[in-house]
Amino acid sequence: MKQVLAVMTLLAGLAGMIAAPQALAGEAGKYHVVIQVSEDNPTQWNLALNNAENLQQALGKGNVEVEIVAYGPGLKMLLAGSKVAGRINGAMDNSVDIVACGTTMKKMKKTKDDLIGGSRVVPGGVIEIADKQRAGWTYIRP
Amino acid sequence: MKQVLAVMTLLAGLAGMIAAPQALAGEAGKYHVVIQVSEDNPTQWNLALNNAENLQQALGKGNVEVEIVAYGPGLKMLLAGSKVAGRINGAMDNSVDIVACGTTMKKMKKTKDDLIGGSRVVPGGVIEIADKQRAGWTYIRP
Amino acid sequence: MKQVLAVMTLLAGLAGMIAAPQALAGEAGKYHVVIQVSEDNPTQWNLALNNAENLQQALGKGNVEVEIVAYGPGLKMLLAGSKVAGRINGAMDNSVDIVACGTTMKKMKKTKDDLIGGSRVVPGGVIEIADKQRAGWTYIRP
Repeated sequence: MKQVLAVMTLLAGLAGMIAAPQALAGEAGKYHVVIQVSEDNPTQWNLALNNAENLQQALGKGNVEVEIVAYGPGLKMLLAGSKVAGRINGAMDNSVDIVACGTTMKKMKKTKDDLIGGSRVVPGGVIEIADKQRAGWTYIRP
Repeated sequence: MKQVLAVMTLLAGLAGMIAAPQALAGEAGKYHVVIQVSEDNPTQWNLALNNAENLQQALGKGNVEVEIVAYGPGLKMLLAGSKVAGRINGAMDNSVDIVACGTTMKKMKKTKDDLIGGSRVVPGGVIEIADKQRAGWTYIRP
Repeated sequence: MKQVLAVMTLLAGLAGMIAAPQALAGEAGKYHVVIQVSEDNPTQWNLALNNAENLQQALGKGNVEVEIVAYGPGLKMLLAGSKVAGRINGAMDNSVDIVACGTTMKKMKKTKDDLIGGSRVVPGGVIEIADKQRAGWTYIRP
């Protein structure tokens, strides 16, 4: 009996070890997608926004969590006056998480006030993307 | 004894939970690679085709499953008359799965007849890529 | 008792099955990131080098393993005389693994002597990236 308890403790530990990815996969099949924007290129910006839109339309907004991370030359997508500012506001209204790289902002001497309102700032764009992949998210680089 | 059976049932359940990725990883080490093409750029198209070729040559055709998904501006790679039409036919002959994004086709007012014969159409290219990643496939964005 | 032993053997086997990804995830949270360079484009080369730098600065050099794989048109980043040769030497000094695709080298008729000293040559760049992803590494395509 004691041994059985020991085995069950081991089992619980093992289940815990694989809990993170399983939790994601198990959440009623919900999709989690992080989309990277790292180019100063409105064609890519529109493609990233299309990707987010298409995921939501095909799966249903409640079944997919979408985050767009802009870093490096891609940060320009999120500056006030960006060519896709209107579409970004629309994406935010649709619960797409719009994320700016703090490291790039420092390099470009930009502050939160220079960004389209509602953008979320993270310390580093690449680390944000790595963290998402490590948590089981799908990575899309349009 | 009953407890042991309970543990074994738990174990079986646990094994089932991790079966999907394990099945892939366990299939005698077979590789599964999804290659994205999302640019209107023949250099990238050729690179994607080279990637597929190199994977097959290095690993042996039987040991790797390769799918190329074209979406957005990348769909042009799969239109009849594409600059790489010959190479795509060759890739198909080598069992590379050539996949076109149905959402992009609708936007560009293209039908299956506009595509290089043998292309497979999926509802959405990004969802196809997400599904593959979720099933444990390797993602390559040339 | 015998059954319990059997269960523990099963458990050990199960733990072994998931050992590869777990080992990575469990290594005190260490990050493992493979960065792809496949364009003949110094903007992308600098972005890849920035990504490596930022990961090391944010996480601490001991907490992240970074590998940059150059293949296809991206191989030019690693040729002696490359516009970013100085930065690549700096990255090597900081333990970033700089890797060249042997298949591309053969196509471009280059040998190890044509590369920036210290570059590591692998048979195929795409297979190297696939292997890393299969081992649980994060994939970044700047």
